[in-house]
Amino acid sequence: MARKKHSIQQSLNDQDVAGNGLLHRRLFLQGGAAMALSGYAANDITEAAEGLPVEPWMRFPTTEGFAPYGSPSRFEKHVVRTGMQQQANAPPGLGSIRTPLHRLDGTITPNGLHFVRLHSGVPDIDPDKHRLLIHGLVDRPLIFTLDTLAKYPMESRIYFLECGGNSQTLYLRKPIQAGVQRIHGQICTSDWTGVRLSTLLDETGVKPNAKWIVAEGADASGMARSVPLSKIMDDAFIALYQNGERLRPENGYPMRLFLPGYQGNAQVKYLRRIKVTEGPTHTRDETSRYSIARHDGTTLQFFLVMEAKSVITQPAPELKLQGPGYYKISGLAWSGRGRGIVRKVEVSADGGKSWAEAAIQSQILPKATVRFHMPWRWDGRPAILQSRCTDDTGYVQWTRDAMIAERGHTGNYHTNCITSWAVNEKGEVSHVYA
Amino acid sequence: MARKKHSIQQSLNDQDVAGNGLLHRRLFLQGGAAMALSGYAANDITEAAEGLPVEPWMRFPTTEGFAPYGSPSRFEKHVVRTGMQQQANAPPGLGSIRTPLHRLDGTITPNGLHFVRLHSGVPDIDPDKHRLLIHGLVDRPLIFTLDTLAKYPMESRIYFLECGGNSQTLYLRKPIQAGVQRIHGQICTSDWTGVRLSTLLDETGVKPNAKWIVAEGADASGMARSVPLSKIMDDAFIALYQNGERLRPENGYPMRLFLPGYQGNAQVKYLRRIKVTEGPTHTRDETSRYSIARHDGTTLQFFLVMEAKSVITQPAPELKLQGPGYYKISGLAWSGRGRGIVRKVEVSADGGKSWAEAAIQSQILPKATVRFHMPWRWDGRPAILQSRCTDDTGYVQWTRDAMIAERGHTGNYHTNCITSWAVNEKGEVSHVYA
Repeated sequence: MARKKHSIQQSLNDQDVAGNGLLHRRLFLQGGAAMALSGYAANDITEAAEGLPVEPWMRFPTTEGFAPYGSPSRFEKHVVRTGMQQQANAPPGLGSIRTPLHRLDGTITPNGLHFVRLHSGVPDIDPDKHRLLIHGLVDRPLIFTLDTLAKYPMESRIYFLECGGNSQTLYLRKPIQAGVQRIHGQICTSDWTGVRLSTLLDETGVKPNAKWIVAEGADASGMARSVPLSKIMDDAFIALYQNGERLRPENGYPMRLFLPGYQGNAQVKYLRRIKVTEGPTHTRDETSRYSIARHDGTTLQFFLVMEAKSVITQPAPELKLQGPGYYKISGLAWSGRGRGIVRKVEVSADGGKSWAEAAIQSQILPKATVRFHMPWRWDGRPAILQSRCTDDTGYVQWTRDAMIAERGHTGNYHTNCITSWAVNEKGEVSHVYA
Repeated sequence: MARKKHSIQQSLNDQDVAGNGLLHRRLFLQGGAAMALSGYAANDITEAAEGLPVEPWMRFPTTEGFAPYGSPSRFEKHVVRTGMQQQANAPPGLGSIRTPLHRLDGTITPNGLHFVRLHSGVPDIDPDKHRLLIHGLVDRPLIFTLDTLAKYPMESRIYFLECGGNSQTLYLRKPIQAGVQRIHGQICTSDWTGVRLSTLLDETGVKPNAKWIVAEGADASGMARSVPLSKIMDDAFIALYQNGERLRPENGYPMRLFLPGYQGNAQVKYLRRIKVTEGPTHTRDETSRYSIARHDGTTLQFFLVMEAKSVITQPAPELKLQGPGYYKISGLAWSGRGRGIVRKVEVSADGGKSWAEAAIQSQILPKATVRFHMPWRWDGRPAILQSRCTDDTGYVQWTRDAMIAERGHTGNYHTNCITSWAVNEKGEVSHVYA
């Protein structure tokens, strides 16, 4: 692996794979971490079992643990969604709350922490009364209930879901002083189960001139979005279950459109109607919002694929480093392009001057987040951490400079550029442009 | 595919793949379900969007949906764990609650519904005070805190976890009249994340005569189990995260041993100590329990691999059929043997006289549950539904008769035989031996 000299670093030793302390990703497996830990936590090492105190919780049984529906530990109360629940001048129910990515590991997001973006709050839908109508350019319009949908073959897939507006503050001229949850917390991965739309459209039949659909939600916002019929026939489905149980109310209960790899907003929640059409419908929700406004005054409409992206979740602005030593850089990477396979994640500790390939710790599934990590020896001096994702189409996550050059500061959606976390001499992490 | 004639069935038409109405698994994709549904739910079909009522939830926005930690819909209150929380003569905190498999779909189990088996309740462990000691036949005993473990590379894998005692009532002489939740509800699948034990044992070093370990929990039961060192070095890990968030208290918070494909009980929760040993320790928990008592008076000890198994979750005793017509038979299959790959699931509607291969609707991941389904035309006459799993080692899930012949009615663990659900003329489903 290429080793590039970096000015902050006096010299690179045999373990280094890139500037500023990035270490070979197999280092931990070669005993390197033990050395690190012996310096880091010498008082954690003992010679005998007797060194382990018998804590009070070992002395007496409890009768806890049999709740019909369980909850996290009381020691994890800080692991919650946060965000803008209601702004002063906004309509009721317009807001978003975001996933505490810096506190999580693995790739699946627990349902209770899935990000939420709502335009008119959660509708209190009676599932027995909810209907899905498929009509328009079809041979035979059909209405489906939850009971009838249950008779169809379902598909279960682990897919990411990212809000089209995730990370959009990176279009701002100055880096906002916020953490990974506020900036990037609208990306989650779940096991989604439902009925393929191609199956249902086989039932209704589709007219030869049909090329698009428009999907409408049953909440008060009446969210409506246009999607090419090719995508609908390829892999779209009506999602009914999220990580095994029925969809959560804030994620579309009792059903939502699911479009693997596409912008979250197009995956209409509380889905009540799919109309098959000749062309896009140009709804309010896809003209006033959810299109990319470029600096030359033009708009990128129906730009729906979420492109390759990665985010370092630890360290992050919310997590201060506790002095020089060995750390693990960890994060998430994903892509909605092509087959949605993450081919490579690279990490830099010197603001992009040198890069090294991270290890992927999770299973690599199409259009799902993967988790990467890399060992890092922090020398206590300022550093800038970055990550970049390459997908199976060869697409490489772009820099913020490249994104701004292309779209300008008026850009507002599909923010998939590289994020920079600066570490200062105190170990504080902050969001910078680099 | 072979088509066998069955006495109940007058004649098999072209769609049938096995006796008693089992249909080709691609039938739904060929328009067959539409015909079925037109008879089943004719009043669900309309000709225009105007046929859809504007329900009250579309009329006004709400401010709901922004909870820091979300919950299921109020319409899903019946989807809960149930079981024996406290029996009259049992010690405090001894019991189990089980997953409502008949209400779920997909493969991941939401954390709030993961089955629970506890021997002395959930200990209220302060994660900052919890310690993991690795000692015994090692060069250098080490204690790990949550903070030090966080510095190691982690691995994230989607694995099933099944209680060794799951389904054990099938050893009884008479089939218990209970449903899929009571009988089989101790199998779940999650995304588990943690540190490989081989990594930690690289740090401590292992003496040449080491062949086993014994793992001890920090709850009041002091659960202790022996595991061969070969398994520990192969793929065992210290699980710290469950579906992205910290382990749930009832599933081992803040850490548990994880042994992919092994009996759940051996995957010691609240893990505080791993002692490397020459041989098995023969602890109370693996001699008085969790060994298979055979009818010849011998015991199968350290029989830890959960063998290939499948369960039909819909229809199930909890779910009555609503008259003759088309249904979907759906269920879960898994194996801890070999690479843990489910190669095939077959379904029978005539008590095992004829079989047809089910479709697999989920991704097939090693040592994780897969979900299968098959269309079924129920003619309103009695039927017996069964499923059987074949894994990548060629092992075929055995019949109950074969299991009883081998182990007798004293058997009590690792109950992986075929289950039979009888459907009577009223559409009621019950547990039978067939």
